[in-house]
Amino acid sequence: MKAEIIAVGTEILLGQIVNTNAQYLSEKLAQIGMNVYFQTVVGDNKERIAEALKIADNRADFIICCGGLGPTQDDLTKDIFAEFVGRSIEVHEPSLKKMRELFKKRGINMTENNIKQAYIVSGCEPLQNDTGLAVGVALTQNKHHYILLPGPPKELKPMFDRYAVPWLQSIIGDQQPLHSKFLKFAGIGESILEDRLKDLMEQQIDPSIAPYAKEGEVMIRLTTKAETQKKAFEKMKSVENEIIKRAGKYLYASENITFEEALIKMMSSKNLTLSVAESCTGGKVSELITSVGGSSSVYRGGVVCYSNQMKHEFLHIPMEVLEGKDAPGAVSTQTAEMLAENLNHQTNTDWSISVTGVAGPSESEGKPVGLVYIGIKQKGSPIKVKSVQLPGNREMVQLRAAKYALYQLWKEIREI
Amino acid sequence: MKAEIIAVGTEILLGQIVNTNAQYLSEKLAQIGMNVYFQTVVGDNKERIAEALKIADNRADFIICCGGLGPTQDDLTKDIFAEFVGRSIEVHEPSLKKMRELFKKRGINMTENNIKQAYIVSGCEPLQNDTGLAVGVALTQNKHHYILLPGPPKELKPMFDRYAVPWLQSIIGDQQPLHSKFLKFAGIGESILEDRLKDLMEQQIDPSIAPYAKEGEVMIRLTTKAETQKKAFEKMKSVENEIIKRAGKYLYASENITFEEALIKMMSSKNLTLSVAESCTGGKVSELITSVGGSSSVYRGGVVCYSNQMKHEFLHIPMEVLEGKDAPGAVSTQTAEMLAENLNHQTNTDWSISVTGVAGPSESEGKPVGLVYIGIKQKGSPIKVKSVQLPGNREMVQLRAAKYALYQLWKEIREI
Repeated sequence: MKAEIIAVGTEILLGQIVNTNAQYLSEKLAQIGMNVYFQTVVGDNKERIAEALKIADNRADFIICCGGLGPTQDDLTKDIFAEFVGRSIEVHEPSLKKMRELFKKRGINMTENNIKQAYIVSGCEPLQNDTGLAVGVALTQNKHHYILLPGPPKELKPMFDRYAVPWLQSIIGDQQPLHSKFLKFAGIGESILEDRLKDLMEQQIDPSIAPYAKEGEVMIRLTTKAETQKKAFEKMKSVENEIIKRAGKYLYASENITFEEALIKMMSSKNLTLSVAESCTGGKVSELITSVGGSSSVYRGGVVCYSNQMKHEFLHIPMEVLEGKDAPGAVSTQTAEMLAENLNHQTNTDWSISVTGVAGPSESEGKPVGLVYIGIKQKGSPIKVKSVQLPGNREMVQLRAAKYALYQLWKEIREI
Repeated sequence: MKAEIIAVGTEILLGQIVNTNAQYLSEKLAQIGMNVYFQTVVGDNKERIAEALKIADNRADFIICCGGLGPTQDDLTKDIFAEFVGRSIEVHEPSLKKMRELFKKRGINMTENNIKQAYIVSGCEPLQNDTGLAVGVALTQNKHHYILLPGPPKELKPMFDRYAVPWLQSIIGDQQPLHSKFLKFAGIGESILEDRLKDLMEQQIDPSIAPYAKEGEVMIRLTTKAETQKKAFEKMKSVENEIIKRAGKYLYASENITFEEALIKMMSSKNLTLSVAESCTGGKVSELITSVGGSSSVYRGGVVCYSNQMKHEFLHIPMEVLEGKDAPGAVSTQTAEMLAENLNHQTNTDWSISVTGVAGPSESEGKPVGLVYIGIKQKGSPIKVKSVQLPGNREMVQLRAAKYALYQLWKEIREI
């Protein structure tokens, strides 16, 4: 059940477009239980497309090609493929008829080169194109299975889902599909988490355990084959429990959602409201929160108090705290405290957080780039302030400070 | 000058992430005059990585690998590569030292598996990692040139640009390098711009003309080979002038900077200050602005008035404008007007903008998803309001509304 994806297109090799087709196909193939071992990208070049086909044929049972089915001169895939499998090209009459009707309906003259899009390989199963003109190809020969799909994602996706997947499933028959479960962690680094799970991962048990890190989040993916998702999740249960035993403190979700989604979900379920006062993050905290659909039930708003004037004007921080020789300054415990306190007083939300720090590129108030203070205020409770020294450039300090603030908030709320 | 990119990572083959690294590297390699003939993706598997290296070695002079340099067990690239070229692995002491210091500074215990990230291949040129821990590798052997880069884009990009590109350029030596000039446009769609330049692009002249579209921006890249950048730019001059003659109205920069950077640059050079009141964009406008280094000389701050309460509390919009049977509502010309007017009054900045609209996923106040009002206030001048109906899902509406607001501001300021 080894599969290989070959994407054809010079524009991918020139870096003009990202190969999102390979991602789409890989994900779908995994879902029906196929193992994609290689993805290859090759340009619109006869010899190199043939070479890619030959290599794939040697190492895969299923070869899925995409791109190069269009009407132009550099659309070569069908011709080269036909030659590769030793078959002839013929016109698929229903596709040609459909094409002629479409052009007529639109009142456009159909140029000759369009006929190419109705070509199929003799003896193949044509794959209908519901959203475009180029017909696709499915073929089994010498125990190898081939699919040719058009390159534009809006044509490739429906053709693959509606016609190629059923064709593939009819071949693989009773194979059990792969199911994945995602455990998502925050506040713990990838290497530390992996260290805790090392022995489990080394045993190469079923389910397989794979870690992935993103800024501020680590994901553990458990994967196994089973008839149904329910059965797969049952099979995973004991491994999942063992992982939670070792690192459950940092687990924020048992599904593939972002940290912000989990935070909003938790706050929403507890009917909690939030407001944000942010300086160095410049809107990033609010933007992360409001990128979550449904965040308006939790998030009331915030002040981006980027200048001292704004801190003073909107959140009433005395200028003598912010500026002057002996003042604590804008980047200080005192300012973080007062920002969250005053914001909470003004907005009357259940929680308020503040972020003030030095995002860079240069230091400020004699304080180093990356120094950040977070104020966390629960209505009616004493304010808490955390400080942290974050690494990275301006963009990373801003992102990390925002993630850190949301993580501290999550921790506080989870503990109540 | 044949190059091949090998991306290592099972998560790509499972379709969990898109291979954006290959796109980035392909684009950059093309710019320095290299022809990428194949991109390959292979999983975290010893035999298959070795196979991919062998195939690439047979058909390319330059092999750029990315991914698999991290601390975990499935990070295999360096070990397999060392075996492939018949060299040993050794610790790169400066990288290890840096790593130890970093862990110490952050007060985290450095686990043993991290040392792997300081490994290099004996006799290679180490490539410094300014934004992460895993050191990269550059090696020439038997007229083949190899580069190993870390997988996370935020580490790969700076390492490639700062250290790998100069190394590659030192090898390709006397080849006339490619130079590019970037013309950046806003407020015009890619297809309309391309239509205006169609004849120029079809002639396949030198410099070559290539368009790229990103949300809210279109870039035209002019590329030619020349000894120096100065000579290249001279060669491009007449084509550049022709393009500006046809679409100069939409040109915001003649260098590869983002629209926000151009806006901040323009406002900064005119000593103008800005404040922002945003509702549906939830912090996105402020975040776009403050992602630009040096924006603090222009941007004073803003209010993320996500709820009506915040609009009332911080920007004094009367509740009878926001709510009630016959009220204009939060998404209205009146609210956009008052938000920008009141914010401008309170902050006393030269310019203030407001954004209010329906980001979705569902309609609000009986108004459709994508309807957005922008208020633009120059201190001492009458307020202007623009409205627009934007397409797309929540994320797209938020981004497009933020970009649209900044574009309207840019147009106003440019015209004064």
